[in-house]
Order: sequence, then C-alpha cells, then structure tokens
Amino acid sequence: MINRLCEKIKKLNAPVVVGLDPMLSYVPEHVVKRSLSEYGETLAGAADAIWQFNKEIVDSIWDLIPAVKPQVAMYEQFGVEGMKAYQKTVDYCHEKGLLVIGDVKRGDIGSTSAAYAAGHLGKVQVGSCLLSAFNEDFATVNPYLGTDGVKPFVDVCREERKGLFILVKTSNPSSGEFQDRLIDGRPLYEWVGEQVAAWGGTCMGETYSYIGAVVGATYPEMGKELRKLMPKSFILVPGYGAQGGKAEDLVHYFNEDGLGAIVNSSRGIIAAHKKEAYARFGAEHFGEASRQAVVDMIEDIRGALNAQLC
Amino acid sequence: MINRLCEKIKKLNAPVVVGLDPMLSYVPEHVVKRSLSEYGETLAGAADAIWQFNKEIVDSIWDLIPAVKPQVAMYEQFGVEGMKAYQKTVDYCHEKGLLVIGDVKRGDIGSTSAAYAAGHLGKVQVGSCLLSAFNEDFATVNPYLGTDGVKPFVDVCREERKGLFILVKTSNPSSGEFQDRLIDGRPLYEWVGEQVAAWGGTCMGETYSYIGAVVGATYPEMGKELRKLMPKSFILVPGYGAQGGKAEDLVHYFNEDGLGAIVNSSRGIIAAHKKEAYARFGAEHFGEASRQAVVDMIEDIRGALNAQLC
Repeated sequence: MINRLCEKIKKLNAPVVVGLDPMLSYVPEHVVKRSLSEYGETLAGAADAIWQFNKEIVDSIWDLIPAVKPQVAMYEQFGVEGMKAYQKTVDYCHEKGLLVIGDVKRGDIGSTSAAYAAGHLGKVQVGSCLLSAFNEDFATVNPYLGTDGVKPFVDVCREERKGLFILVKTSNPSSGEFQDRLIDGRPLYEWVGEQVAAWGGTCMGETYSYIGAVVGATYPEMGKELRKLMPKSFILVPGYGAQGGKAEDLVHYFNEDGLGAIVNSSRGIIAAHKKEAYARFGAEHFGEASRQAVVDMIEDIRGALNAQLC
Repeated sequence: MINRLCEKIKKLNAPVVVGLDPMLSYVPEHVVKRSLSEYGETLAGAADAIWQFNKEIVDSIWDLIPAVKPQVAMYEQFGVEGMKAYQKTVDYCHEKGLLVIGDVKRGDIGSTSAAYAAGHLGKVQVGSCLLSAFNEDFATVNPYLGTDGVKPFVDVCREERKGLFILVKTSNPSSGEFQDRLIDGRPLYEWVGEQVAAWGGTCMGETYSYIGAVVGATYPEMGKELRKLMPKSFILVPGYGAQGGKAEDLVHYFNEDGLGAIVNSSRGIIAAHKKEAYARFGAEHFGEASRQAVVDMIEDIRGALNAQLC
C-alpha cells in the first residue's frame, strides 16, 4: 500500500489526505433533517446523517486526492450504528479508488494488538474461512506499550502489504507533556521515532517502509529532526489548517524526492462550507465547498514545496 | 461508579474483575458449531459464538464478582457484527448488576477524545435527544497525548459519575521500552502516575477518585511505588494468572483499607475449561469451570491479603 500511496501522490501531485471526521455539527441542517426524519432522533439517524455527508464529500473530491483518513471516534460515538457508517465509508472510499487510513490509534498488549490488527488490516479465521472486517489500508497505532504491542500490527502489514502510521509527536497542545521529556538528553518522541525506523526496516516497500509515523504540523522544528531520524518512514502530518499548521512549515517533513509526507486536513475541508472563504457555496453545496478547499490546499502545499525546490 | 465499585468489592469481599476477552479459540466447539450452523462461516457467526460464550460465562459467575472487563479488540476484530456482540455483552452484564470496565484504551487529541468519551461513557446529542451508545461504567485510556487528550474523558466522568483507568505501567514484557525510561531520574510511568493523581484530584468519590490507573501485576515492585504515588487512585491490575502475576505479589497494590486495587484475570477464567486444573468439568460445562476458577482466584487473592494483614 505504501507503494500505491507513493504512486497516487506522484500521479495527482497531491501529498494530501482528507480527514473524514464528521462531527454532527459540521453536517448541514438539510442533511441532518432528512436522516432524522427517516430514522428519528436516534443513533441510527445520526449515523445516517454522517454517512450521507461523507458520501457527498467523497463524491466531490475523490479524483483530487490519493487517500482519506476517517477518524473512527467520530463514528464510534454513535455506537454500533456509527460503526456501520464507518464501514460504509471505508467501503465507499475503496469503490472510488481511494486509499483509506483508519485513524484508530489502537495499541495494546501483544495478543490484543493482534486482534486489532486482524480486524482493521488483516483477516480473521472463522471456521474454514478467512474474513476481512473493517479492511482499511493503513491504521494509526499508539506506541506507549512498546515493541510487543506494535509488532502484531507490523506482522499483519508485512503479510497483507498494508501500512501503519505510529504516533511519534502528536499535533495537540499538550503533546509535549510526556513526548518532549528528555531521556538521556533526547526527547521521548525521538526514541519513539528511532523505534519506528527500526520496526519499519523489517518491512520495506520500494522506496518507503510500510511503517510510517504521525508527526503534527504544529511542531515543524521537531518534524525536521524526525524526518532525518526516520528517512524511510512516510510521515502522516495532522494539524494543518484548523489546528494552526502552515504549508511553509511543512516542507521539511518531505524528502528531496518530494515524497515522504502526506498532510491531513479534516475540519478545513469537510466543514469548508462553514468558513467565510467558502460561504459563497452555501450549505446546500457543501460538497463543492469541500472540493474548492481541497484544490486550495493542494495549491498551498505544492506552492510551498516548489518554493523550497527553487 | 467508583463508590459503587468499592461497595461491591466490600460486599463480595472480592477485589476481582473478569476479563471478557473471548478469542474464538477459547470458545468450545459445540458453541462455535451452533453459531456457525445458524449464521454460516461469517463475521456474524463468529460474533454470535463469542456472545453465546460470554452469556454462559456471565450466567455462571455474575454473583461472585463486582465487575467485568470486556476487551473491545476481541469484538472489534469481527467488525460491525463484533461490535454488536460487544454492546450485547455490556448490556447483559448491566442487567446482571455487574459494573462494566470497557477495556478500550482510547486516547487522541481533545476533540477526538471527547467523541470517544461521549460514545463510551457519556451521551451524544442527536436533535433534541441525549443518547447513550456503548455506555460502559469505566473505560481504559492511553495517556501518550497528555492532558488535553485525557481531559475530555475526565470531564465526562465528572458529569456522568463514571470512571477511568489510565495506562501507567502495562503488564506486557516490552512495556519498559518507553515507560521505564528515566526522565530527571524517575521513570516515565511515575510521571504518568503523578499526572493520574493530579487529574484524579479534580473528581473525587467518597474515598477514591473517579480516575484510576492500570498497573500490571507483572511488575510488583513498580506497583508498590505507584500505590504510594497515587494514594486515591484505584488500580486496575491486569496480568494475574496467565501472564504470570501472583497473588502474593499484589498485596502492595492495595491500601490498608483492603481497597484501592482490582485484579483482572481473563484467559485464566474464561478459558478455564482448557486448563488441566479444570478439565474435569469438560468443554460442555465451561461455565462451571469458569465459576470454579473465579472461586479459586478470589480465595487466592483473599489469602494473600489476609496473610499480609497478619
């Protein structure tokens, strides 16, 4: 999948992923109303609203981008009905040819991580059948439990040719509370980054490893260091746009081949119709607003990368 | 919920929680066969098998213990169908009067953690209704993202009088890889433990805080230190039995009031029928084997605690 991700990024000239994190408050009223009038004010109604919202956004942007990143929490909050909407979203994005990064941030002791890995990236054995469940192409993983909590994910990736993005330095304001603490003179996130590079060395794609990292756009200096520390790891970069990350800050997350990073925007794209810059589209045309926001984001990132090359 | 947990532990004299982590390989053949013949070799068939298995175990042990701890990964691996079995299990345990610790190990940036917290412990707003989704009583949380990733969970706990167990020192062999690294002379898990105590100070129950910690049974010396560092935090102790933790090692996880810790066993209880010690029950009577294993575990823990008091 990492090879496919590289190909798609090059073909589209767009190292960009759209986060499908549909808060109900982002969904235009006419969509919510339609779903709730069909299913009532229920979890099924809410789940249908976010699914209809996603579908229209995906229909509007699928040809511009290599991948989407649904944040499972936004579905899980609606329980089983929400998880159905998550599954539908993953499947629909696959139909549209998009790669899917399941932003699940799972991680546990070995046997438990193996179950998560099977359910999200691999297959489970039921009787004589091997079955896929959620079947994303990539998943995000939390490293706090160390190698034996991560290895089952790595093993499944090797087998299924899928990929991971492991949390190294997250984009949130208090990420430094533990991640920045110095251990033998170096911050924890660097030790984690070094392990990501080591884990990644065991399953390489053509140029990049199957095992990537998450490094927030909001900490560009750290991103620059981590880029050097993990030269073969793709970096998934959250925090662009709504969280404050700027394109010119992100050039150092990339390698000289113009690859090595993929920048995520969630709210900035899917809730574009709520922003002044795209208000002209109106809530009825929220898909078109998202499309324009994707076009603008790609331009912004391309511009920064080109400026860097000159 | 922490008050109810304390009451139930005292009433039953059993600081024990059973992990409902149903690997399909633990489920006796006659149960699997019945489910697969009804639903085919499908995810629905597998999910039905683990649900039927859980139900019989819960029916056999509910009166002995204060709480259960379903590990969501074991359900999530079967996709949406598995999540239905998870929800059924949570609801059924509630019907039986058991407290439910959702072992979900979630944790993300603030807005995302808020969605997880709403879905697992709180309520979501849909139209004019406030609805519960999974509705566990406690959840486990990963601290790697720091305060703003944990706070939304704490806020929901305060509002709903529910509880958390935050990963401090996990039971797995490589937990030390990051958790034991020294920061200003003290291991990371102590810094996390100190934060757990601070977060917990903001929402106290009668004697213990709503905010507890996870400390593995496999690291008793660290458990002893952490007990002192977080005097008001209940400690959820995984790793007893199958992972190697022994009752006599666990006495220091408790406070002098005989409370302050709850010891989990998963495999050792739910797969008891596969152990030599309980083979006499036979696979047909796996529920009775589990009951006997719970009785023995409670005796074992009580014995160690009493020996300590003498």
